[in-house]
This record gives sequence, structure tokens and C-alpha cells, in this order.
Amino acid sequence: MSSQVITPRSEDYSRWYTDVVQRTDLADYAPVRGCMIIKPYGYALWENIQAQLDRRFKDTGHQNAYFPLFIPEEFLEKEKENFEGFSPELAVVTIGGGQELEQKLVVRPTSETIIGHTFANWIQSYRDLPLLINQWANVVRWEMRTRLFLRTLEFLWQEGHTAHATFEDAEEETLRMLGVYTDFAVNEAAIPVIPGRKSEHEKFAGAMHSYTIEAMMGDKRALQSGTSHNLGQNFARAFEIRYTDEDNQLKHCWTTSWGMSTRIVGAIIMAHGDDQGLRLPPRLAPIQAVIVPIFKNDAERSAVVPFAEAFSAELKAAGVRIKLDLREGLSPGFKFNDWEMRGVPVRVEIGPRDVQNHSVVLARRDVPGKPGKQFVPRDGAAARLAELLVEIQAAMLESARTFRDANIHPVENDYAAFQEILKDGWAYTWFCGDKDCEERIKDENQAVSRCFPLDQEPGEGQCIKCGGKATRRALFARAY
Amino acid sequence: MSSQVITPRSEDYSRWYTDVVQRTDLADYAPVRGCMIIKPYGYALWENIQAQLDRRFKDTGHQNAYFPLFIPEEFLEKEKENFEGFSPELAVVTIGGGQELEQKLVVRPTSETIIGHTFANWIQSYRDLPLLINQWANVVRWEMRTRLFLRTLEFLWQEGHTAHATFEDAEEETLRMLGVYTDFAVNEAAIPVIPGRKSEHEKFAGAMHSYTIEAMMGDKRALQSGTSHNLGQNFARAFEIRYTDEDNQLKHCWTTSWGMSTRIVGAIIMAHGDDQGLRLPPRLAPIQAVIVPIFKNDAERSAVVPFAEAFSAELKAAGVRIKLDLREGLSPGFKFNDWEMRGVPVRVEIGPRDVQNHSVVLARRDVPGKPGKQFVPRDGAAARLAELLVEIQAAMLESARTFRDANIHPVENDYAAFQEILKDGWAYTWFCGDKDCEERIKDENQAVSRCFPLDQEPGEGQCIKCGGKATRRALFARAY
Repeated sequence: MSSQVITPRSEDYSRWYTDVVQRTDLADYAPVRGCMIIKPYGYALWENIQAQLDRRFKDTGHQNAYFPLFIPEEFLEKEKENFEGFSPELAVVTIGGGQELEQKLVVRPTSETIIGHTFANWIQSYRDLPLLINQWANVVRWEMRTRLFLRTLEFLWQEGHTAHATFEDAEEETLRMLGVYTDFAVNEAAIPVIPGRKSEHEKFAGAMHSYTIEAMMGDKRALQSGTSHNLGQNFARAFEIRYTDEDNQLKHCWTTSWGMSTRIVGAIIMAHGDDQGLRLPPRLAPIQAVIVPIFKNDAERSAVVPFAEAFSAELKAAGVRIKLDLREGLSPGFKFNDWEMRGVPVRVEIGPRDVQNHSVVLARRDVPGKPGKQFVPRDGAAARLAELLVEIQAAMLESARTFRDANIHPVENDYAAFQEILKDGWAYTWFCGDKDCEERIKDENQAVSRCFPLDQEPGEGQCIKCGGKATRRALFARAY
Repeated sequence: MSSQVITPRSEDYSRWYTDVVQRTDLADYAPVRGCMIIKPYGYALWENIQAQLDRRFKDTGHQNAYFPLFIPEEFLEKEKENFEGFSPELAVVTIGGGQELEQKLVVRPTSETIIGHTFANWIQSYRDLPLLINQWANVVRWEMRTRLFLRTLEFLWQEGHTAHATFEDAEEETLRMLGVYTDFAVNEAAIPVIPGRKSEHEKFAGAMHSYTIEAMMGDKRALQSGTSHNLGQNFARAFEIRYTDEDNQLKHCWTTSWGMSTRIVGAIIMAHGDDQGLRLPPRLAPIQAVIVPIFKNDAERSAVVPFAEAFSAELKAAGVRIKLDLREGLSPGFKFNDWEMRGVPVRVEIGPRDVQNHSVVLARRDVPGKPGKQFVPRDGAAARLAELLVEIQAAMLESARTFRDANIHPVENDYAAFQEILKDGWAYTWFCGDKDCEERIKDENQAVSRCFPLDQEPGEGQCIKCGGKATRRALFARAY
């Protein structure tokens, strides 16, 4: 319960974000530096995200498994020896059972190494391929500057790990899972992400090809919301993941990995939130509709509450995630604001007159004030509410798409214009993909290429930085 | 795929257990000492366990949340200062981001301390009570002797943590969750556990009252399968979890905690398994029925496979977790053995004659050979199979109950008989509950009291050890 004010976005976007996360009870800082406590409301949102992703993973043939939290230090050294891999800052266990450990254990920052080691045991023949595994887990990266959901020492995620017989199979899997992430973001989170390929500068160092979905936040900065990597044979060579092919030859596998984390909660907050607080897409909202009964005395109460309870029960039976707010000592107005702040898509108001008229009021979170309100006959109100949730889901996606499209600016052969765009939007331009060009753009603009969007017309132009030949356009933006 | 033989239980029960876990692909040892990899088949079983528990937690008003993996060392010291608490061997992170840490971080062995610290911030008034939280998480205890699922360095579990205004409320919650565990074990896992209270010797050191559900394994040893603790005000005092009551007085809360872990997988294996391998209760089995098509040539194949596919699709649509085994190069006999070993409750055999007769064969895993087989008309076979799953679930519970009851022996005033019983069964006897008595029984028999069963006739007798007055009977057994 909170009546504290949320800092307006225009005043301080970063402060707005933290206010929203804390005041809506999504999460809070833990007594351990950089770690977070995911509170029940935030965790319920994460559970809905998990369910929707997990369903898609299983539908595409993946199985869940669980691998150890601790990774022998030597595994990460092996990764380093074989290729310039991922080198996050690590948390290291050096004491176990009161004894100094001979072999230090790293708390997993990601599991390519230990899963690669395991795959080498599991895979013998081409018949064992493809091997399609996913893990739901916590991981730890020793970040210095942390922000709730966006960057924390420990976070929750899923990491997919697969092994294939050929490059083509691995590439197909990598793109399939990018598609799954895109579908989830667009159709569940109502975030019109742009799927694309990462540049050499921005890709996962252990990968051949990295793909990403990029989302535009309310401050027009980009948030990488999910990644999918074709790891080529890098990990297969480092961990001897091999199979005997139909021709009886021993060959290295081709592997992939792909992940989405609690960071997506940050994306949902910033893609949809407004100065009143959260706006949650109905398909993921822990509470899809809240009923606020309105009464001034016991007589009114005894008419309104049973009416509200009956409607609540009907909605629950129809599968709507419904909350009936019977808290005492709080005014309806306070409750309206409270649930608005918490982003519940629909508010149902029921007062004595509604009971008399056998009707209810439905108020949309995404359309403020009168225009968002409708009086609905009680009969058929549950069906109308279900429709409304679908309409809101579509409207939120449309609104985010309009905002995104209004803030992506094509630019050609004009570096000054490009720089101007990057101050308050995304630039879409020809880019040669060269690491040096990217490094210089980064230094000069605090912005990097977010991706080469997959969906673009073929063509050719001049790189925005070096003027050399470019065959693909990239999106550039400042990012989280 | 494995045609290796499983060691018979009579030869070496412990070896039988490990064979079953590894050869049925439930889990395997990890390249980190004492840690395990939960393989897809084992993880699917765990997911079904989670779903059934989680539903019950939510139905009883609990919400999930997530707290940090790392606990400041000082929290555990505070626990120690306040009362003789839980003191498992710990894994300690001393290096973060390449630097020696000033404040060492313990990898959580359980979360009473950090959740207690958090509850102190969340709770102000009696209106905030009860606070009913659950967490699904991994925990680490530096065990020296480990066994897959039963005792591993890292394991997965859920830990419930609640805060209440009064002792009575906390005790009611403690018993409610014991009831949830009992209901789950009996009705989902088909394990006839005995709920009861732990003795002073065996209780969680930080608790006022500890309760447990005790299960009998195939070797007649006991396995503690879930615990529920009334923590009194111990943690509330250590972490200042206080609330302002209606009378405006600041009071300490009463807290509880309760947990069930991946250990329950070990219980399912040992409560039901036989020399052929696993036997999984239908309600939790990842695969409830497997269809093995039988054919000798392409002509037969082209009749049998479409028939099997149609049946598989019908079962899937009816919500049965079905597997159609179309693996090539393996004989039907090999497949029969393979799925039998993996404990799939029903095998469906479909051969050319079945197609002709428009029938299928249903074979029960729990009833070997001819008596377990039935020929069923194809029309209505899906409904028959659904019924059969219910029958098997009930039969497995009944069979485990018969075994349990045959191996629990009441005994009074005869320590020699008591000792003899403990060599190969459970003894049910009067027990004064004294720590010294229990210590001596333990030294002399390698057995401790498992619990004072809740369900017992009131009465009075002489303690089996000291002969002093005893008002409750306890179960004694050797245990895992």
C-alpha cells in the first residue's frame, strides 16, 4: 500500500524507474550489495513470463534440465584458452565446509562450459542430435553499477543450450529461438521488438553469430531483451563435444545458446509505464482486473459487496486473474490510484447505483479518464471484460509500435544528422560493420549498433562512419 | 537408451538405487564434487512435483517471491548468538570481481535469516499479518557423503516462510503445511507417509516445534520427506520482526518455515521401485503411457504406425502424457524393458492383429506379466486408459501402505525386542522424549525416533529406554 508520488518521467527518467519498481512492490534492494528481492507482485509477473516462454520452448522440442551452480575454475580457463570468450566478473567460492578449497568454484555466470562438458558425455552418435536443452536458473555476475531488474549481481533467467550435426542446423535453431523470443515479446509483453543480428563489436565473444531482440524504452534508449547465439564449433572444440556421423567419422558438434532474463521485467516497465506508474499487458499481468466496491454505509455495503463477490467469482471461473479489493479504511479514490499505479489493465467499479441498474463500470488503465470508461450491463459483463483485455493488449502493442516508429530515423551519408538523431532516438543507417567504425561511433556518441534488423530491403550504401561500402543497414542507439 | 542390468535390491540396495537413478536417466553426478545434474526425465518429474505443490501453496494463500542466493556472514552469526540454530557446513564466497571481499558471503543453506531480515522491513502492523511467502530456490550445504537426490551439495527445494501475530496462528500454519505435504505425498506420490512431531533431539534447532512426514523405503529405512517448523519467536527476536498490535503495543511476530526438496524424488524411487527399475505414480509420471508399435515388415508398419499415431493423438488431446516410441533399430522387446525400467505406468502394445481386431493391449507396470495385461477395444480405449491410470495410482498407494504396515511393529517394555525390530523394520513404542534416552538408543541401534505420530490413541506407558513415564508413542527406525 503506497500513496507516495512517483517522480515524473520528464523530470528524471531513471528516478521514475526506481520509484515504479519500489512503490508498486515489484522488487527491492537486498541487504547484499547489488542483489534484489523479487517481491510477490514482481515474482507473479515473472511466473507468467516463465509460463509463456516455457510453453514455447516445449512446443519447439526442448526439454528442461538442471546443471550445477558451481563451475570448476579450470572450465573457465579452458574457455579462455580456446577463444576469447565471455569474461564477466566472477563470484568465487574458496571455502567449503570450513576448509580452503583446492579447486576454487566459480558461481555460474552462464553455463556454456559446464553444459558443454556434460554434452560431451551425453552425445556419441548422430542419433543423439539434435540435443535440445533448457535450464531455468539463477546466475551471478559481479556488476559494479546495478539497477533493479536491469543489472543485478544475481538474476534469474533461462538459458537454452543445444547441439547439432551441422552449421545449418545450428543456425536454424538460433533463428528459431530468436523467433520464439520475438513472438513472446510482441504477443505476450506487447513490446514491438526488432529482431536482428549483432555486429562483430557487439556479439557474444564466444559466438559465430549473435542475434538479439531490441526494444525501445520510454526514454528512447534501447534495451537488449533476449539473445540467441550460434556458437559454431567454439565450445565443441574446447569441451570435445563430438559425434560419430553416419559416415562413421568423428566430428565436432555445432552448438547454440539463447537466454532471456528477469531483465525483461525492466523492459515491460519502461516500454509501457507512464507518470501514474506501471501499465501491464493483460496477458502477463498478475492481476488482470480489480474490482473496487463503492459504498458509504452498511446498507450500501450489504448491497454492493455480495454483487461484487458474485461478479468476482464469475470472472475467476472464466479464467480471469481477478482481485476484489475489500481492504477496509481506504477510500475508493485511494484504491483507484493504487491499482492504477500497479498497472492493473482494467478496474471494475461497482457502487449502489450499479447494483440498482444491474450494471458495472469498466475503466481501462491504458485510456485515462472518461474516454476509458464504459457502463456495461451486468449480464454479459464477464464476456465484455474478456474482450476488453484483448483490446487493451492490442492497443498497448499498437501504442508502443507508434512510439517506436516515430523515434526511429533513417539517415544516409550525413554523420552530423546521425549524431543529432542519437541524442533523442534511434538512427537507421548503412553500416559497414567494421569494429573500428563502431568503436569511433561509440566514443563520439555513447551509442553502438543495436542490430542489423533481419527485416530489411536488400541494397547497398555508404557506411555512415567510414563511407565505405555497406550492404546492410543497422540500428544505432544509446542503450541500457 | 540402456540395456544394462540393474543390481537386484536384495543383493545391494544402495547399488540398486544408484543404478536406477543413473540408468533411467533421472540424474547423474556432475564434474563438481557432490553436485548433480538433473537430466530431462528427472527434471520433468520434478516439474510435476513442483506444479502439484505450488498449486496447494497458492490455494492456501501463499505467494511466491525470490530472495538472494548470498547471505552476509553476519546474519548467520546473529542467528548463532541468539539461539543454537542450524549449523550446516557452508560454502563461502570470498572473492568477487577479482577482489577479496571485506564482507564474506555465504551461499544460502536455507533462508530464515535473510527472509527474517526482510520481513522486519515488510511488517509494521497487525494488518500486515499473516505474511505468507514461499520461495523456489537452490540451496547449498557442504555435505561430505553425498547420494543423488538424497544428499547433494546443491539441491532444489521450496522453502515457505510465514509470520503471524500469535503462537496459535503460527502453530496452525505449521500444521496446515504439514497437512499439505501429507496430502501431496499420499495423493500425488502414492507414498503413505506418517505425519508427526519431531523429538527434541531430532527437531530443527531453531524451532519450538518441528513436524515431519516420514516415508518407508523399500529397504525399510525411513526417509524424512518434508518438514514444517513452528519457529516461535526465535527468528523474530534475532531479526527484530515486530508489529504494532491493535492495542498499539509493539510485539514480536511468531514465524514458521517449511520445506520439501528434490529429496522427494529419492523417496518416490525407493518407495515404489522394484528389481526392474522405477515405478512412477501416474499423477507425477513424466510419461503416463507409452505406445510401442509392433511390426515385422513395411506392410505391417504401414498399418500399425498410423493406427498408433491416431491413438497417441487422441490420448494427447485427452490430456494424457503420452509417448509414441517410433525409435528405429530397436526390437519391441527391448522397448518393453526400457520403458518398464523407466517406470512408465502403462504400456500400450499395438501390432498388426490389434489393428485388424480394432483393439489395443494395455499392460500395467505395477502388475507384471499376463495378469497386468488387458485387451481393450480401440473405441473407448482412451477412456479405459484414463481409468487405468487412476486404478494404478490407487494400487500403488495401497501396495506401499501394505508394505509399510507389515513392517511397523508395536513393542512395549521389551528393549531386546525393540532392538531386534530395528534391524529390519520400524518400532512403534512409548517414548519419554528425553534427549539422553534418544542418544543412547541411537548409539546402540543406529536408529533415532522419526516422529511422534499425530494420529495415535491417547494413553500412557513406560519409555522403551528408561522405563519412565511416557504419554506418547514414537516411531523409531534407521533412516536416510
